[in-house]
Amino acid sequence: MWPGRTRHITRPPIALVNRLARRLESEGRDIINLGQAILGLPPPSSALEAVRRGIAQPGTHAYSPDPGLDAVLARTATFLRTHKHITGASPRNLMLTCGASQAFANAVFTTTNPGDEVIVFGPYYFDHVFAIQLAACTPVEVPFAKEGSRFAIDLDLVERAVTAQTKGIVLVSPGNPTGFLADTGTLERLCQLCRRHELWLLSDETYDLLTFPPGTHVSPASLDVLERVCVVGSFSKTLGLAGWRIGYLHGPADMIEEAIKVQDALVVCAPVPAQLALLAALETIDTFSSRARSELLRRRDTMTRVLEASGLFDIHPPEGGTFLLARIRSAEPSLPFCTRLLEATGIVAVPGAAFGRHGEGHVRFSFGNQPVERILEAGERIAAVR
Amino acid sequence: MWPGRTRHITRPPIALVNRLARRLESEGRDIINLGQAILGLPPPSSALEAVRRGIAQPGTHAYSPDPGLDAVLARTATFLRTHKHITGASPRNLMLTCGASQAFANAVFTTTNPGDEVIVFGPYYFDHVFAIQLAACTPVEVPFAKEGSRFAIDLDLVERAVTAQTKGIVLVSPGNPTGFLADTGTLERLCQLCRRHELWLLSDETYDLLTFPPGTHVSPASLDVLERVCVVGSFSKTLGLAGWRIGYLHGPADMIEEAIKVQDALVVCAPVPAQLALLAALETIDTFSSRARSELLRRRDTMTRVLEASGLFDIHPPEGGTFLLARIRSAEPSLPFCTRLLEATGIVAVPGAAFGRHGEGHVRFSFGNQPVERILEAGERIAAVR
Repeated sequence: MWPGRTRHITRPPIALVNRLARRLESEGRDIINLGQAILGLPPPSSALEAVRRGIAQPGTHAYSPDPGLDAVLARTATFLRTHKHITGASPRNLMLTCGASQAFANAVFTTTNPGDEVIVFGPYYFDHVFAIQLAACTPVEVPFAKEGSRFAIDLDLVERAVTAQTKGIVLVSPGNPTGFLADTGTLERLCQLCRRHELWLLSDETYDLLTFPPGTHVSPASLDVLERVCVVGSFSKTLGLAGWRIGYLHGPADMIEEAIKVQDALVVCAPVPAQLALLAALETIDTFSSRARSELLRRRDTMTRVLEASGLFDIHPPEGGTFLLARIRSAEPSLPFCTRLLEATGIVAVPGAAFGRHGEGHVRFSFGNQPVERILEAGERIAAVR
Repeated sequence: MWPGRTRHITRPPIALVNRLARRLESEGRDIINLGQAILGLPPPSSALEAVRRGIAQPGTHAYSPDPGLDAVLARTATFLRTHKHITGASPRNLMLTCGASQAFANAVFTTTNPGDEVIVFGPYYFDHVFAIQLAACTPVEVPFAKEGSRFAIDLDLVERAVTAQTKGIVLVSPGNPTGFLADTGTLERLCQLCRRHELWLLSDETYDLLTFPPGTHVSPASLDVLERVCVVGSFSKTLGLAGWRIGYLHGPADMIEEAIKVQDALVVCAPVPAQLALLAALETIDTFSSRARSELLRRRDTMTRVLEASGLFDIHPPEGGTFLLARIRSAEPSLPFCTRLLEATGIVAVPGAAFGRHGEGHVRFSFGNQPVERILEAGERIAAVR
């Protein structure tokens, strides 16, 4: 048994299923990967053109300032004002990061001390819990409530989970793996609760522009209720830039000043070519994200239909994101279920146990990376093994 | 006063001096930046060509596996065998990271528990101490010894600093900011000490190929004395890829398995375009690094000459790297000295206090990013204010 702090951290489950999938693929199997929460769209061509131009400039190969290049920070702040209605967004409140994971790590390390508690809603996004554990803090799990087949937040449960050690609450909306979308009323009450207990709200908004109508994404930072909001953002899905590692952290200026220290120690700065790609891509984010949303809607509807037709699952209809969480009707544990599914059908999906004890008994199917025809094919394979 | 764990972390001093420099520059001043430890050479054109080709491929825009792309891991392992004589290097012992800072953070978080102690030699590289503090560990400073004007390691001092809480020793060779180079005898004795006390040796080898003759860089992982060696590597300087954020961590396979958990939570994977750039660039690393070394030697000799001529400093001749550490003869504290120097001459240099109490009274001058003519110009300005 490993002696260090990673002992309690489970190996990223996506890596485990992907590894098995790669083995099957190398044996000639046709794999349909519904595992990773990615979007199967390349970035806007303007972004790639900007990189082609950028790499001819010497500055592209040097470090940028820790928080990012001035022009990219300014442009990202504009995006936060126009698209996310965070009226006070400015470069002073902002830093560019190596993706949302790093933004979240910056936020956790900045707002806590070792031994503090941070509340997460379960089923949770595992990397958030890992980051909290790395920071020598304790993740405290509050289960999502249910309203019919939809997930919801029970503020009484949150209130009861708050202790003197609690420093923050993590909210992911649209949620991973739940597809949960927080409405304005819930957000206002959550912000009030945070204000009352002097907690930080760590708001992961990775899927903000991938919210499905009639829902609309609301950032808690756009409400004038709570100052201590950290917005964790990504362009991995909303601009197809996952491999480039670019995201951001937005928060009060004094928090960002502290988070820059963390960033300097962990990665120095976001990759400069990725910053250039982002600067160009933000100009077309409306076109890109609306195309992504309508494609995702078709894929979501197909995925829902084929999973329902299989009779194996109860579906939680997602209100945003690139995946859905399905309950296994047979109550079989999720890891053997997913392993069996992969071996029998070549379909990769993520066992719900990866998302904590409230995820057990579920499977996360990502539809973002497969065309409708492949999702239909997946449906036929699942129907055949039933 | 900020309430969290970053309270004890000083703002990255390079950012502070760069900020003042940017202000002066915006006022029309001609700034000579001898601050950041970067190399003023663009990456090999083959690397940029590989990126141009790569961005036409959809895979470039998706996440890679956490440890990196198979082909890039295999090629990097070959580099570790052929250039660093780490005979057992293989992809199982290796992960690609967002630069050496992130590799070091992975190593510290993986090999320690909160409350542990990690030994650093002072003057130390500040980002190492920050990362140790973020990991809720205590950095324990052992001063470098002196052999004439050269830095050295006194193993008796190290031995006395080891406690029951000590988990590792950080070695930077060639050293930042000292320019110290560890010889084989010192490394063997340090490895034996680590083995005796069951410590990890965290070996930062960022400047490995930028070692000046007649010295040669030796990696402790190439000696068959200690298994628990983590090699932290970078291609920011030896391939000019700083802005791309690409480095690596090498260590025992079971340690790397654990470090992958840390990487997943902190950044997921190294940027894929940077991995492609690295794969191509490694083919020409001999040409690139020998050109870099001979250019650095000219710059180092010029820098040494003009600083000695000023009469203001005692010089520690560096045995590798892109900078030198100079002792201020007047014994003026380093921050006011550097601020005064910047305001009077437009020369950016890093106050030694940034490198801990054993760095106080010194200034780090980076010569890697300025042509000889600019270093001569810097010398004239310094002579004029004397």
